[in-house]
Amino acid sequence: MKQILMNAVHMSCVGDIAHGLWTHPRDQSSRYTDLDYWAELARTLERGCFDSLFLADIVGANDVYEGRPDAALRAAVQMPIDDPLLLVPAMAHATRHLGFGVTANLSYEQPYLFARRFTTLDHLSRGRVAWNVVTGFLDSAARAMGQERQLPHDERYARAEDFMDVVYKLWEGSWEDDALPRDKVAGVYALPEKVHAIDHRGPYYRVQGAHLSEPSIQRTPVIFQAGASARGIDFAARHAECVFVSGNKAQAREIVGTIRARAAAFGRDPADLRFFLGVVVVVAPTDALAQELDAEYRRYASPQAGLAHFSSQTGIDFSRYGLDEPISLVKTESVQSFVESVTSKSAGKAWTVRKLLEQMTLGSRHTPLIGSPQRVADALESWVRETDIDGFNLVRTVVPEGFTDFVDLVIPELQSRGSFKTTYAEGSLRHKLFGAGDRLPRRHPAGALRRAASGGAST
Amino acid sequence: MKQILMNAVHMSCVGDIAHGLWTHPRDQSSRYTDLDYWAELARTLERGCFDSLFLADIVGANDVYEGRPDAALRAAVQMPIDDPLLLVPAMAHATRHLGFGVTANLSYEQPYLFARRFTTLDHLSRGRVAWNVVTGFLDSAARAMGQERQLPHDERYARAEDFMDVVYKLWEGSWEDDALPRDKVAGVYALPEKVHAIDHRGPYYRVQGAHLSEPSIQRTPVIFQAGASARGIDFAARHAECVFVSGNKAQAREIVGTIRARAAAFGRDPADLRFFLGVVVVVAPTDALAQELDAEYRRYASPQAGLAHFSSQTGIDFSRYGLDEPISLVKTESVQSFVESVTSKSAGKAWTVRKLLEQMTLGSRHTPLIGSPQRVADALESWVRETDIDGFNLVRTVVPEGFTDFVDLVIPELQSRGSFKTTYAEGSLRHKLFGAGDRLPRRHPAGALRRAASGGAST
Repeated sequence: MKQILMNAVHMSCVGDIAHGLWTHPRDQSSRYTDLDYWAELARTLERGCFDSLFLADIVGANDVYEGRPDAALRAAVQMPIDDPLLLVPAMAHATRHLGFGVTANLSYEQPYLFARRFTTLDHLSRGRVAWNVVTGFLDSAARAMGQERQLPHDERYARAEDFMDVVYKLWEGSWEDDALPRDKVAGVYALPEKVHAIDHRGPYYRVQGAHLSEPSIQRTPVIFQAGASARGIDFAARHAECVFVSGNKAQAREIVGTIRARAAAFGRDPADLRFFLGVVVVVAPTDALAQELDAEYRRYASPQAGLAHFSSQTGIDFSRYGLDEPISLVKTESVQSFVESVTSKSAGKAWTVRKLLEQMTLGSRHTPLIGSPQRVADALESWVRETDIDGFNLVRTVVPEGFTDFVDLVIPELQSRGSFKTTYAEGSLRHKLFGAGDRLPRRHPAGALRRAASGGAST
Repeated sequence: MKQILMNAVHMSCVGDIAHGLWTHPRDQSSRYTDLDYWAELARTLERGCFDSLFLADIVGANDVYEGRPDAALRAAVQMPIDDPLLLVPAMAHATRHLGFGVTANLSYEQPYLFARRFTTLDHLSRGRVAWNVVTGFLDSAARAMGQERQLPHDERYARAEDFMDVVYKLWEGSWEDDALPRDKVAGVYALPEKVHAIDHRGPYYRVQGAHLSEPSIQRTPVIFQAGASARGIDFAARHAECVFVSGNKAQAREIVGTIRARAAAFGRDPADLRFFLGVVVVVAPTDALAQELDAEYRRYASPQAGLAHFSSQTGIDFSRYGLDEPISLVKTESVQSFVESVTSKSAGKAWTVRKLLEQMTLGSRHTPLIGSPQRVADALESWVRETDIDGFNLVRTVVPEGFTDFVDLVIPELQSRGSFKTTYAEGSLRHKLFGAGDRLPRRHPAGALRRAASGGAST
């Protein structure tokens, strides 16, 4: 049995993607502005040998439902929301091994400054940072950035390709590995002949200059991605090292196979990718207790708040539909995969608000796993065995107890079966995930941009 | 005697503004990528009741000297340099009272995302954040952002005014104070009718939408500024709460008077501003030991590296001048104040590289104070008494020992004289500095944009 990888998923906000659970009396997510909350969470996850804490993010209001943000604001659906990047330094300081994945929408960023920000995080965390690449899907975000609406879906990906090209050049191609003698006696910190200005002239970005930061341990952060559209799959196959998938086992197996094959077509080794399935776990010492806990949690979940969220994700205002009224299918690529995942779980092809609501577990659309540690471990192992995924994104429920329960109950069960590590390997997040060093492999598009140290100390 | 305020100045890089001192055997600034280094420094400053640690920043290479960045890279003159914002969360977590001022160049930022970043920092630090507003002065930065060159000086300030207007609206005018019942039982986190989208249509920025973050303790961070040009003085008089000044006592007194008067003309209370003089202190138990330490430090200082820095600041390539060759005066506003500060310290109006070099102390152009704790305390007190400044920006020398020596020797001396606090006041950085609450006063342009809580709970 291969070793299962495990990320925890949270956001720097109250509502997150487990809609309504912040109202549970024991839930502490309203402490999201408190560094102690985050440091405690990071230590709990590190105690459970989690690979990383993944902090999702969204920029812009969920204002498609009812044509206004009111429902989302009332239920704290991903707004208010703080900048997740700024949580990492304090958590990195409180831990030694846990990785930190952060969603950052590249669409409104200056790549030159953005690259420095991630290098800084990689420095401060000693090589434990991952970037979940997103291009956004909210027109409300575009309006907040001085534009009428966002770029069309495919053009967003074209811009993203150009952006990646810039930041790869800055991270990999600007400073040689042996550019830094840091020689106090000679008074020479860097060797100018080994620090190269990039000169990028792409369709969207022009960037001239050397990277501001010296190289970090990983140089390029570990790249996370979750594209489900055809263009998104290509983007993941080309760039991603960790890919987030959803659906049932057949769907997951298919998408994993598709992306690994596409990655090979791009000249990458399919083994250079790791796949993670989003899961909602409710665990207790026995199945009966887990069912009880799940019933208790359900009383606080808000599928209605979930609708406000899904309206933004699909661009469809679900408030305009009766519970059983067939929803007219808008066939844009960005909603297609969402619609397919709903209809594939329903009898027939008509989808309704009722079906959407029924498919939610604790206010989330991720795969639910409820039961004793043995039952949950069985399920996790069967997923890995049957679908070629590598691990899981454990979505929050009631925090921190949902994560604490998982660490206290499920992790030891998996460890006793030999399917989960009992200690961390040393080294960077990338090395922990792939066991092949801190840097991206040469066959990755970023690795190909790496400048060999001209002094011969190439890595 | 009024209480003296004290900031420490450092940067997230090796070279900083005390050029060459990183080569001192005891200097630890090459640990700038290590969070322990920053947490230790923050704790030292908090032990000394410092008001804040001010982290300067620069974006772009110092490449005017010799027309290339080589001299700067060799001597680590502010490059490589990491993002200073990301140091704050770990230091905030390691301290309780110390404030954190961070330079951030607004010229290449999206105000909507920028505003969230600072609100997040203010949340995480519990109201201890200040922003040093700069517009940059390097063409190399503009080229890294896809532009041929930066905007002209005055237009940069016009854009800055528009940017400030946007972020003030987001910080002060979007969320009412009583917008957040956070009511778990009713399932209501925010009241939509108390969360207002801004609709800014300025000459440079268009921003529509509500602020992403809920209000932080200070809402608007404490505003630092250091403009010396006529346009910069107006900007400081309008916006700044803490202003950085330089020069001799007569010059400092004049600039303080000018800015306070201009602030009054803008409808502000001149007492709502605090002025800080940059100083380089070398202190030891006796005058003789301090002179010895200064001589030791001087052996490592690099005025030549300083020239590479000043070339960028003035746009004049000093490598093209002989030591005593008169430097032709380029009369642009951005260099005028620099030139004036050099010539005012020299006999006559001709300035040369030699004069520049002579005016540097330990690789810096800030006011030097060298001696026993009594002598340094005398000097600090006389500056405050004679010039109407409120405190000092203590520039780094050999770190951390320069800061530690100041905390161990000068602070107790000032405290024994009653001119420096022995404990912190409770509350936000702004309240600690001004004693009048966490928020900007109404008569500040940001305060005027504050939305009274419609439920009557206005502050």
